[in-house]
Amino acid sequence: MYFQGKKDIVANKMAAMLLDIGAVKLQPHKPFKWASSWNAPIYCDNRLTLSYPEIRNFVKESFISIIKNKYSAIDAVAGVATAGIPQAALIADAMNLPLLYVRSKTKEHGMENLVEGKIINEGKVIVVEDLISTGASSLSAVDALKRTGMQVLGMLAIFTYGFETAEVNFKKKNVPLHCLTNYNYLLSVALERKYIGERDMEILNAWRRNPDKWGNRK
Amino acid sequence: MYFQGKKDIVANKMAAMLLDIGAVKLQPHKPFKWASSWNAPIYCDNRLTLSYPEIRNFVKESFISIIKNKYSAIDAVAGVATAGIPQAALIADAMNLPLLYVRSKTKEHGMENLVEGKIINEGKVIVVEDLISTGASSLSAVDALKRTGMQVLGMLAIFTYGFETAEVNFKKKNVPLHCLTNYNYLLSVALERKYIGERDMEILNAWRRNPDKWGNRK
Repeated sequence: MYFQGKKDIVANKMAAMLLDIGAVKLQPHKPFKWASSWNAPIYCDNRLTLSYPEIRNFVKESFISIIKNKYSAIDAVAGVATAGIPQAALIADAMNLPLLYVRSKTKEHGMENLVEGKIINEGKVIVVEDLISTGASSLSAVDALKRTGMQVLGMLAIFTYGFETAEVNFKKKNVPLHCLTNYNYLLSVALERKYIGERDMEILNAWRRNPDKWGNRK
Repeated sequence: MYFQGKKDIVANKMAAMLLDIGAVKLQPHKPFKWASSWNAPIYCDNRLTLSYPEIRNFVKESFISIIKNKYSAIDAVAGVATAGIPQAALIADAMNLPLLYVRSKTKEHGMENLVEGKIINEGKVIVVEDLISTGASSLSAVDALKRTGMQVLGMLAIFTYGFETAEVNFKKKNVPLHCLTNYNYLLSVALERKYIGERDMEILNAWRRNPDKWGNRK
């Protein structure tokens, strides 16, 4: 249970790293517009972690720690395209395992697959994701892997907003989700490090409860 | 000049590996239809190499060998999305360098960039690609990196068809291209290992001279 005891330490450290390099930005008074058209007081670009070898290694080692503590035997690692691929590659490399990756959709023409790499029939796979919002695209990658005959043991991600809808979606699909940190840890570290003030917390918590409706005041 | 002397050995070994795992398929009598709508006697899926740790390591070590022999100082490694990302990640990891990746186009909405990761102004970057056909998409990734203010030193790829148009395109942009193997090595290894016969060579060479016109007999 090595990782269990370290969970808070990892979650706090990861949150601090994301904030310190500007991978996560909190702007309760100047919301971002997400691709989904939601307004949000937070924007998350975990891809920046790839450019900091020390942070990238922390993510890699933490993911490997979870795998070694929770899963006894796995046959392959799969990254969700695009942002999940680099860490999936690093884990596969460190554990000397086959690597696959999963696209969100096939290219229009040609022979491209949803799942790239060698399918292992009934092979046990761990899926690596960057970021969990509703979980919809991550779980569609899981579905694509399952359709090939592989068994998805669980999913790893750097960060989750912790939306209730994501929790429901992962439970429904019976996919254990392990995130290095989450919105709660992030807010508490951000407050401690003075990225936000006490009064911002109410706005930030209100958004998380109703992310699809928040900030759409006309 | 460690790599120079080993170039043929690497190229032959890489070609044999690609053929043996079915990453490259030669069907002179039953052409493939490419995404570009070209008919072709060859189909190349280098992503399969990712699922074979031994081959993946060979690619990684060969790429690192080229970098160490040809480039004295680099600041970052960039993968071309999607298939170039995994090896770019492995090289960045082994060399303890920042990693970036480059999309072929931005998503329609939101704040996605063409170049993901941290831009290093005037930073010297090596670009990692999977496969070179005309070079158009690979060189548009180079352009995207240059527009951010980074310096592209050169590009690495697993395989090139060796089309004249690619050679012209890379020269025009002044980007040195280093491929682990190419169509010539592939055909000679395929012949030697009896994947094809002597009489197939004429068809396969005719295709390479005019890939855009070949096989379009009505």
